[in-house]
Order: sequence, then C-alpha cells, then structure tokens
Amino acid sequence: MGNFKGHALPGSFFLLFGLWWSVKYPLKYVCRKNKSACYLGSRAGFQRLEFVEGIIKAVFALIGMVAEQFVPDGPHLKLYNYEEKHWDHLMNWQHATMYLFYGISGLVDIVAHGTNALPVAMDRMMLSLAVFIEGFLFCYHLHGRAMLDIHVHQLLLFAIFGAAVCIFLEVFFRGSIVLEMLRTSLCILQGSWFWQIGFVLYPPNGSPEWNQTDHTNMMFLTMCYCWHYAFAFLILAVNYTIVNLSVCSSRNFIF
Amino acid sequence: MGNFKGHALPGSFFLLFGLWWSVKYPLKYVCRKNKSACYLGSRAGFQRLEFVEGIIKAVFALIGMVAEQFVPDGPHLKLYNYEEKHWDHLMNWQHATMYLFYGISGLVDIVAHGTNALPVAMDRMMLSLAVFIEGFLFCYHLHGRAMLDIHVHQLLLFAIFGAAVCIFLEVFFRGSIVLEMLRTSLCILQGSWFWQIGFVLYPPNGSPEWNQTDHTNMMFLTMCYCWHYAFAFLILAVNYTIVNLSVCSSRNFIF
Amino acid sequence: MGNFKGHALPGSFFLLFGLWWSVKYPLKYVCRKNKSACYLGSRAGFQRLEFVEGIIKAVFALIGMVAEQFVPDGPHLKLYNYEEKHWDHLMNWQHATMYLFYGISGLVDIVAHGTNALPVAMDRMMLSLAVFIEGFLFCYHLHGRAMLDIHVHQLLLFAIFGAAVCIFLEVFFRGSIVLEMLRTSLCILQGSWFWQIGFVLYPPNGSPEWNQTDHTNMMFLTMCYCWHYAFAFLILAVNYTIVNLSVCSSRNFIF
Amino acid sequence: MGNFKGHALPGSFFLLFGLWWSVKYPLKYVCRKNKSACYLGSRAGFQRLEFVEGIIKAVFALIGMVAEQFVPDGPHLKLYNYEEKHWDHLMNWQHATMYLFYGISGLVDIVAHGTNALPVAMDRMMLSLAVFIEGFLFCYHLHGRAMLDIHVHQLLLFAIFGAAVCIFLEVFFRGSIVLEMLRTSLCILQGSWFWQIGFVLYPPNGSPEWNQTDHTNMMFLTMCYCWHYAFAFLILAVNYTIVNLSVCSSRNFIF
Repeated sequence: MGNFKGHALPGSFFLLFGLWWSVKYPLKYVCRKNKSACYLGSRAGFQRLEFVEGIIKAVFALIGMVAEQFVPDGPHLKLYNYEEKHWDHLMNWQHATMYLFYGISGLVDIVAHGTNALPVAMDRMMLSLAVFIEGFLFCYHLHGRAMLDIHVHQLLLFAIFGAAVCIFLEVFFRGSIVLEMLRTSLCILQGSWFWQIGFVLYPPNGSPEWNQTDHTNMMFLTMCYCWHYAFAFLILAVNYTIVNLSVCSSRNFIF
Repeated sequence: MGNFKGHALPGSFFLLFGLWWSVKYPLKYVCRKNKSACYLGSRAGFQRLEFVEGIIKAVFALIGMVAEQFVPDGPHLKLYNYEEKHWDHLMNWQHATMYLFYGISGLVDIVAHGTNALPVAMDRMMLSLAVFIEGFLFCYHLHGRAMLDIHVHQLLLFAIFGAAVCIFLEVFFRGSIVLEMLRTSLCILQGSWFWQIGFVLYPPNGSPEWNQTDHTNMMFLTMCYCWHYAFAFLILAVNYTIVNLSVCSSRNFIF
Repeated sequence: MGNFKGHALPGSFFLLFGLWWSVKYPLKYVCRKNKSACYLGSRAGFQRLEFVEGIIKAVFALIGMVAEQFVPDGPHLKLYNYEEKHWDHLMNWQHATMYLFYGISGLVDIVAHGTNALPVAMDRMMLSLAVFIEGFLFCYHLHGRAMLDIHVHQLLLFAIFGAAVCIFLEVFFRGSIVLEMLRTSLCILQGSWFWQIGFVLYPPNGSPEWNQTDHTNMMFLTMCYCWHYAFAFLILAVNYTIVNLSVCSSRNFIF
Repeated sequence: MGNFKGHALPGSFFLLFGLWWSVKYPLKYVCRKNKSACYLGSRAGFQRLEFVEGIIKAVFALIGMVAEQFVPDGPHLKLYNYEEKHWDHLMNWQHATMYLFYGISGLVDIVAHGTNALPVAMDRMMLSLAVFIEGFLFCYHLHGRAMLDIHVHQLLLFAIFGAAVCIFLEVFFRGSIVLEMLRTSLCILQGSWFWQIGFVLYPPNGSPEWNQTDHTNMMFLTMCYCWHYAFAFLILAVNYTIVNLSVCSSRNFIF
C-alpha cells in the first residue's frame, strides 16, 4: 500500500459507497414522505437494496483480502519468517484484517436483510465496529513516520471515528435521515482524503515532493481537509436536489 | 486577525447571536406554555424567524469571508506564493474556512425552514458541524505560540466543543429549552471571551503587556473564564425574567 | 484551604448532601411504588423538599464564599496587589468561584421549584455545570505540586466529572432511580475522599508525613479510592434497606 | 498473578461468562420472537436465570478474593509491613479489590432479581461500575513495566472500557439484543486476550521469550487482538445459529 495506487484504491471504494449512499438515503427519505409516488421506495425494495449492498461489501472485502495477500510483494499467507526470525509483511496483514471486518459486516448485512433470523440493527453495529477497527489499526500504524505523514493519517482518523460513532448512534436512532447524511458525508470525506494522501505522500507524474517537516504544509492540509468536507456536502446537496426534483417531476408517472 | 479588532469582531457576532437567542428561546418557551396569549408565538412565526436567522448568518459569513480575503494585507484569493515557494496568508484562509462552514449552516437553515424539502433537524446538524470545524481549526492554529496565548485559546475550545456537542444533542432532543439555554450561554461565553482575548493579547490604549509566561496569569484567566460564564447566565436570567414578565403582563392585550 | 480543615469542611458538605440523598431518593422511589402508603411521598411534598434543598445549597455556598474571602489570611475582596504587582490569594478566589456556581445552582433550584416560571430540568443542568466547573478549576489548580498531591486530586476528578456526566444525563432521564443512586454514591465518594486527602497531605496529630514520591503510595491510594467507593455503596445499601423496611412496616399507619 | 496461571484463571472466568451469554441472549431473543414455542423462555424463567447468575458471580468473586489473600505468597490480610515500612503485596490487594466489585455486582443481581425491592436496572449499573473499576485499577497498574507488557494490557483496556460503556447503555436500553451481543463479544474477547497475555508474557513449556522492545511485536499483537475479536464473533455466530435452529426444530415439541 505504500504507493499512490494503494491509497487511490480504498479511496475509490469509499467514494463509491459514499456517492451511492448520497443517492439512496435522499431517495428513501423522499419516498417515505410521498408514499403514493414511489414504486421503488417500498420497504421491501429498500431491504433488498441493503441485501445487495451487503453482497457487494463482502465481495469487495474478499477481493481486498486476496489482493493484499497475493500481490507480487505480498506475504502469500506467510506470517512469520522463521529463517530470519521476524514478522513478514505486517502492513499487508493489517490491511487484510481491516478488510476482514468489512467482510464480516457484509455477511451480517446479508443475513440480517436476507433472512429474519438476525435483528436488523445488528448490521449497523457490525459496520460501526468495522469502521472502528479500521481506525484502531490506523492508530497503531503510524509509529516512526515523518511528521506530515502522521498528520494526514491523523486527520483521516477524525472521519473514521466520527463515522464509527455516527453509525453506532444509528443502532438506536435507525432511519434518522440526519445521521445517514452525516455518515454519507464522512464516507465521501474519507474517500476523497485517501486520494489526497496519495497525492501528498506519493506525488504521481514526477511532481516535486512535499516538505515533510514544514509546519505550514501541516496547516494547509488541515484546512484542505475542511475543504474536502465542504466539497462532500456540495456533492450531497447536488444529489439530494436531483433526487428530490426527479421524484417530484415523476410523481405523475409510475416511478 | 492578529490584533484587537480581529478578536472583537467575531466576539461581537457571537455576542449578538447569543443575546438574540437569550430573548428568542425564552419567548418561544413562554409562548408554548401560554398558547392563548401569544400571537407572535405561533409555530409559523418562529419558523419564519429561523429562516431570517439563516439569511443573517449566511450574509455575516459571506461578509467575513470577503473581508478576510480582501483586507489590505489579505491574500486576495492567492493561496500559494510561487516565487518564494511558500503558502500565502494561511491564517486568513483558515478564518475564511471557518466562515465558510457557518455560511453553509446558514444556507441549510434557509432551505430547511424556507422549503419543506429538507428535514428540519439538518439545520442543527450543520450548525453543530460548523462549530466543530471552528474548534477543529483552532486546535491546529496554536502551534509555536506563547504559553498564555495558547491557554486563552484553549479555554475558548471548551465553549466551542461544548456548544458543538450541545447542538448535536439538539438533533435528537429538538426544542428542549434546557439545551437551547445551554447553547445560548455557551455562545455568549464565546463572544465575551473573544473580547477578553483581545484585551489580554493586544491591550488597546497602550496598557501594559501581560506577562506571557507567568503561571499566576494563567490561573487568573482560568478563573476569569468562569466569571464570564457566570456573567452569561446573569444575562440569560435577566432576559428570561423580562420576557416572562412582559408576556404575562401583556396577556390581556393582543401580543 | 491548604490545611486539614480546608479539606474536611467541603468533604463534610458533600457527605451531608450524599447522606441526605441516600435517604431521600430511596424514599421517593418506595413511595412512588406504594402510592397508597405514603403521605409524605406526594409529588408536592418532594417538590417542597427540592425547594428547601435549593435554599440550603445557596446558603452554604454563600457562607463558603464569605469565608474564603474574609478568613484572616484571605483576600478581603482584593484581587490584585498593585504595590507588588501580582495576583492576590488566587486560591481563595478560585474556591470562591466554585462556591459561586453552587450558589447559582441553588438559586435555580429555588426558582424552578418555588415558581413555575422555569422549566424544572434547569435545576439538573445548573447542578451539572456547577460540578463541571468545580472539576474544571481543579484541573488547572494542580500545577507544580508533588506527585502524590496531584494523584489524590486527580482521583477526585473521576468522582467530579462522573457526577457531572451523571447529572447531565438526568436532564433527559429525570427521575431515573439508577442515575440518582449513582449520583448519590459519587457525592458520598467525593466527600469521604476530601477527608482522605486531608489525612494524606496534612496528617493531623503529628502523624508522620506520607512520602510524596513513593510509587507504592500512589498504588495504595488508587486502591483505597475504590474502597471508599465500596464504602459509599455500603452506606447506600444500609439506608435503602432502612427506608424500605420502615415504609413497609408503617404501611398500616399513617406515614 | 505474575505468571501464566494468574492470567489463565481470570481469562477462563470471562470466557465462561461470555460463552454462557452467547447462548443465553440469543435464546432469550428467539423465545421473545416465538412466544408460543418456548416454555423455558418465559419472563420468570429468565429472571430466575439472572438470579442464579448473580449467585455464581458472587461465589466466583468470593473465591477470587480469598485465593488472592491466602495463596502461599499472598498477603494473608496484612496490608502494611510495619517492620520494613512498606506496603505488602499491593498487587494481590488490587486484584482482590477488582473481585470485590464483581462480588457487589453479584449481590445486587441477587437482590434485584430475587426480591422486588430494588429497581431491576441497578444490576446493569453495578456491573458497569465493576467493569469500570477493573479498567480503572488496570490503568494505574502498569507503571514501570516493559513496553510490550504495557501494550498488551492497554489493548485489554479497550475491551474493558468498551464493555463498561456498553453495559451502562443497557441501563437505558435494557433488553436490546444488539447491546447484549456487543457485551458478550467484548467479554469473550477479554477472556481470550487474558490467555494471550499469559502466552506472550509467560510462555509456558519453555518456549522462547518474546522480545519486549521490538516494535513489530507490538504491531503483530495489535492485529492479533483484532483476530481474537473476529474469533469472538465467530463463536457468537455459531452459538446463535445452533440456538436458532434448535428452537425452530423443537417448535413442534414442548421445549
């Protein structure tokens, strides 16, 4: 993961989910308000969506785990190097562990929304835990790096732990559009910030390196983080408006 | 912003909003109790008030952003100095970013209370975020300053993050007079403390400088902060009493 | 306050309130369960009790403030020594500030339970704030002291901030016997720990001094703190049982 | 406790309770859903179970306290060594204090579920406090140890404080299957991690010592902690499935 692609890939996953949620939750909200208008917005329809989301999450996580293990310079399931007596590719194992919990969260989604054996709120609890574990592993990930490197990853932790708390609250306030929007915005933020980290730490196309010890760089990036967040809200606002208008205009037709 | 006026201005904004809220929320509460008495206290009336508040907030934020950019020694929208290869006027950009989020919060107020497209609770969520972002940027603002300077700004953070948490709770306990009073008191505290910071760090009228490294100064200011808070409650109590009496005495007339 | 008496006095106040609450809240709970049995347990009766409690709190706070100001070596309302250019008796002023907020809390109790102008939940909010301010001032109180001194005061902070959070929760879960018992236990803990601090830092009767830098002393005191808490629950249990039995046995008579 | 057995024993207790809960709570949930099917699942039956659990908890705690005091190299109730003027066996006393609070929690369970004198929610509050006190004492337990030793105990604190918060939430959201599952998973995690600590710090059977200052060991153990947690969820899932199937298949018979 110590390269541009290694940050762009998870960033894209988070962006994808964030963008999808920024369409889904407004749609759900609007449909609940105008019950007569929406065909798609039935309770069962959205439950099926969550089921499919779970499958996609589990598949993505599986792909991620396999990729981390079997990339050319990966550990190939070897954890300890007995000859040289040291741990092997701990970074890859850590990332695989992060994916593992997202995989578990996907499985719980599938069972909770596919059968009625599991209480529905379990999906939020597992997702919250998966996000928390991601942040938890990140915390112990940064030992001995340069100042700027630590700083940009620490900023990421705000989005991660914020999302974990937000999703945990959803266990008790399920279906609250405010929390769902907050989660979506934090997910988009995390995605776009992963891209930003890639650009800062591994500038592609031979751009000049960032000075890792310059304090003004840190100040700029803190501010830049806020701009990313404002941008996430812009996306949310645009999608919300589009969904709102398209549902209203199609109220005469069968949607 | 590194002068007396730069702290007095935002302080005045916060004081203005705090004082206004210290009239509005008691009025709302009293009107809800004595429904027959209040003409103004109708649900629609207060919604219109929130709409107007949103406009004022957005306008103030816009003025703030423009001012930070186009004051004589401001950045004039220039972020990076390519000749000397360093960031340009990061302080002003950070303050502009703070104003940006208050502006977004104002816009959300306008849409949430002007139309019925947005869930109403979104206004509290965005305000909470705007306050949080203010505190977040303050945290990374203080690097390399003198001890007393850091201390007075850290004290401010209690009011800021306290308000952010309080407003976030309002998402779930909307209309709770207790939370609204708490928020109002913290807003007044923030406003008056901005003034105090101005007096401490940039004494006007040629008063002697404060000793930045004297520990007793720190202890005094911590205590002084509590007195400001007690003072905020005094204002709240006075306004609450006035509102209460004027509504009761006018119950016979058309209010 | 830097002597044995200065810690025993506030300790006694907290113990007094804790013991009183350990009778009052079980009584209230039992009376709510056996409505027919209790004459005293009427809603109005308990409201009058809270009113009286507010008066006592306000009087105690006033006495505390006056005492801190006008003890022989107190500041006598003088805050700044202009001759020698330093702050005067900051410790006494800080303690007076703590009392001030308890006084405000008492006033709010009086108004909230004596009239119906104020929402009732305001009393809990102000009490929570008073406790929080006490802890807040304690945090900035300990600069430059010996290790053991800091440690015993830090332990106190757990009881203080725990109580502040607990009382704040009561704003939303008013009348929850569990939170009231938790608050009572933390109040007794705080009271008895004040006494313990007095014994540790200012051993009366010529007992030998405690070694301020011995780590095993710290470990013992941490444990001792837990024993105090267990002791607080013992008191609670005994009082709860007595109240329960006396109400049950008097059910046949007029109570 | 400074040996392998001293960590395996409490680990086994926590595992035992965790495994038992991983059967009990799914059973309770399934029975509530299929009311007709379950004979055992009556409200009274589960209350009797909680009563028995309280007795077992109290007995275990008593055994633990006695064992910590009267093991051959224990303190035998002697707290201070007056000859050599130092505290005696503070570690054993601290562990006994931890057991004491679990004992109190057991007693409260017995009274709350055996009689109707105590509000039922008190059992969760006391359990939450017992877990919190365990974590609190652990925090001040680690002074002056090697890096790896501190790290593995710090990881434990996440499970402990997580469980304390989770159980405290149960005071307000009693009977929420999601919180009960979370608590169960954290309890199993704590148990299995105690075993892991034993294996790491006191390798049995003459295995080689772990390098206490190697940073990669810390990274591996952080990850290992997550695997333990994933394993805890695996156990939960297996038990949940078994309970679910056995209840469904026995629906025709008297269960």
